[in-house]
Amino acid sequence: MKMKIVILAGGSGTRLWPLSRKRFPKQAQPLIGNKTLLQLTYARIKKGFKPVDIFISTGRQYVKGIKKQLPGLKHSQLIVEPVARETAAAIGLATVTLARQDPQTIIAIVNSDHFIKDEKKYLQAIKAAGRSVEQYPGYLTLLGINPTYPETGYGYIKLGREKAGLGQEKIFNVDAFKEKPDLATARKYLKSWAYLWNPAYFVFRADTMLALYKKHLSAQYKILTAIQNNPGKLKTEFFKIKPISIDYGIMEKAAKLLCLPAAFDWTDIGHWRTVQELLSLKKSDNVVKGKYVAVDSSGNLVYSYSNKLIATLGIKNLIIIETRDALLVCPKSRAQEVKKIVQQLEEGKLSRYL
Amino acid sequence: MKMKIVILAGGSGTRLWPLSRKRFPKQAQPLIGNKTLLQLTYARIKKGFKPVDIFISTGRQYVKGIKKQLPGLKHSQLIVEPVARETAAAIGLATVTLARQDPQTIIAIVNSDHFIKDEKKYLQAIKAAGRSVEQYPGYLTLLGINPTYPETGYGYIKLGREKAGLGQEKIFNVDAFKEKPDLATARKYLKSWAYLWNPAYFVFRADTMLALYKKHLSAQYKILTAIQNNPGKLKTEFFKIKPISIDYGIMEKAAKLLCLPAAFDWTDIGHWRTVQELLSLKKSDNVVKGKYVAVDSSGNLVYSYSNKLIATLGIKNLIIIETRDALLVCPKSRAQEVKKIVQQLEEGKLSRYL
Repeated sequence: MKMKIVILAGGSGTRLWPLSRKRFPKQAQPLIGNKTLLQLTYARIKKGFKPVDIFISTGRQYVKGIKKQLPGLKHSQLIVEPVARETAAAIGLATVTLARQDPQTIIAIVNSDHFIKDEKKYLQAIKAAGRSVEQYPGYLTLLGINPTYPETGYGYIKLGREKAGLGQEKIFNVDAFKEKPDLATARKYLKSWAYLWNPAYFVFRADTMLALYKKHLSAQYKILTAIQNNPGKLKTEFFKIKPISIDYGIMEKAAKLLCLPAAFDWTDIGHWRTVQELLSLKKSDNVVKGKYVAVDSSGNLVYSYSNKLIATLGIKNLIIIETRDALLVCPKSRAQEVKKIVQQLEEGKLSRYL
Repeated sequence: MKMKIVILAGGSGTRLWPLSRKRFPKQAQPLIGNKTLLQLTYARIKKGFKPVDIFISTGRQYVKGIKKQLPGLKHSQLIVEPVARETAAAIGLATVTLARQDPQTIIAIVNSDHFIKDEKKYLQAIKAAGRSVEQYPGYLTLLGINPTYPETGYGYIKLGREKAGLGQEKIFNVDAFKEKPDLATARKYLKSWAYLWNPAYFVFRADTMLALYKKHLSAQYKILTAIQNNPGKLKTEFFKIKPISIDYGIMEKAAKLLCLPAAFDWTDIGHWRTVQELLSLKKSDNVVKGKYVAVDSSGNLVYSYSNKLIATLGIKNLIIIETRDALLVCPKSRAQEVKKIVQQLEEGKLSRYL
C-alpha cells in the first residue's frame, strides 16, 4: 500500500526540563536508553516503510540536531517550517508539500515523542488506517488506543457507530473528542469500552484534508495553497498563519472522522514520572541513568547526562535530573509542575537555561 | 607574649562529601563564603601573631593544596607528616620540631576547620591560655567554650576546682573529659555550668608535653626524640608510630590539666546541616551557593561548586551539594550519615570519588 509517513518533530516539552530544551526538545533526547525518541520513531517507521516515503516535519532551529541524530536522512525528507505556527500549520504544510506530486496521496501523521513497545502492531495499525482511507477517501482516519488503565493525562476519542467492514479490523465513526478527564470520568471511560486514548495519529488523503482547511481555516488555506503553487513563498507567507492546533482548527469541526482501534503499548512521555513508571517494574525501584550510589533510597528517577556520580541518602520518590548545565530536584508526585520552573526561567534572566 | 601557633590541617571530613575529598579535605574547601576554612583560620591567627610564629601541621598529600590557598606561606612554616599517624603523632611532631630552637617554647594547637565569628575574643583566649602556661608551666591549658545550647555532637570538659588567679581570667582544673552526650545529658551539662565544649585547643610548653609523651606514649616518644635530634630520620622513623589520638594517648591520662573558659562563637563544621544552620537566619531559609531557582521550596542547603543551575520544585529541608564530579542529595536530618556514602564508595569501585 502506498502512503507517506510524516513524523511530527517540532514540539518542545517543558515538563521534561532540564533535558528538554528549546533547541533540543524532548524528541531529540535520550529519555529511554541511549537513543532519542526521534531515532526510535524513525527506526520503527523504517521497518514498515521506505525512506523515500518517510518525512520529518520540524522547525528551522531543529534541523541541525535532527540531521545529527539521523545521519542517513536526506534533505528532501525534511519539511521545515520557517517559524512555529502550531500543529494545524505544520500538518497543513506537510500536506501541501506532499500534494504537489500527487493530490490524492495518503498521508499518515505520527508523533516523534511517543514510546511504543510493540513495533509490529504499531506498523500494522498505521497500514490498516491507510486501507481505511483508501476505502473511505472522504474521511480522516484516526488511531485510537485501547486504554489499559484510567489515565487522566490523555485526551480520549468517543466511538460512534461501527462502519462497515475493513477485512479483519473494525472501524468506527468518531462521536466526540474528550479533553483530559478527571479520575472518576477516566474510570467511567475505561468501563464503557467506548472511549479510546487519542494519540493524535491521523491518516488522510491530501485533497480531503485540504478541503477541510478550505472550509474551516480558510485564511490558512489560502496561504498554504499559495505555498503549494510556489514553494518560494514559504518564507514570506508562512509566518502570517494564525497559530491554532489541528484539534481545535480541524478535528473538532470535521464531520467525517473514523477511528481505528489499536492495541499496541503506547506512552506519551509527557513528564519525568512517565519515564520512571515506564522503566520500573516495582514502585520502589530506583530508575537510573549514569553512575548512582543509593543509601536507603528507593522509588527515585535518577538521571545523569554528564559523567557525574549521583549519591542519595534517605531519599524516596524524587526526580533528580542532571544535565551538562542544570540540575532538577522535585518529588515524583509534582512532575507535572516542572513547567513552573521553565516559566520562572523565562521571567528571570536565565533564558540560556531554556 | 612569645608563643608559637600550630594550625592542625591534616584531617579529612567524610561527612562533608562530596566537597571534602581525600586530597582536598574540608579545611581546604570554601564552605562559608569564598574562602576556605584554612584561609579563614590563617588570616584570623595572623591578626594576633607574626607569620614567623605560625605553623601549619599537615600531611604530605595536602602541601600543594595548602600552598595554593596561602600563597605567602613559607616552606619553613609547614610541619609535614610523611604519613598520617593520628593527632598524637601530629602534635608530637610539631612539638619536637619547635622544641629544637627552644625546649621551653610555648605552643598553641588550634584547628583549621572551625568557624569563628568573634576573632578578637578568639585571639584573646589563645593569648590568655599562653599566660596560663607561663604561670603554670607544668600544666597543659585547654580552652573550653561556654555552651549556648545542649549540643550532642561535641565532646565536653568537666571543670574542677578553680585555680588561683590569672589577672581577669579564671582558670580551672580539668575534672574529666566527656564524650558526645545524649540530649538529656547535654541539657544537664548546660544547666550545671560546670561543663564546657571541648574544641581541642591545647596550649603547653614543649618540654612539659614531651614529658607526658615519655610517660604515657614511651614508644612514640623515642621515635619523636630521634627525629628531634636528627630531622633526617623523619622519613624512616615516623611511619613506625602506632596511631592514637591525643585525647586517648595523652589528655585522658595527664594529671595536670587546666581549662580556660572562653565565650567566643565557635562552630565545628562537622556536616552539611552545620553549614545550613550557621548561615540561615530562619529555619525556612534556603541557603544557597551558586545559581538557584526555587519553586515552592524552603529550608534547603543548595550548594553548587560548578557553574550549574540548580532548580527545585516542592522540596523542603534537603541538602543538595553539587561539585565538579559528584552530586549529593539527602535530608538535612540525616546529614550525619553522609559518611555511609563514603563507606559505600570505599567498598565499591568508585574510589576516585573519595
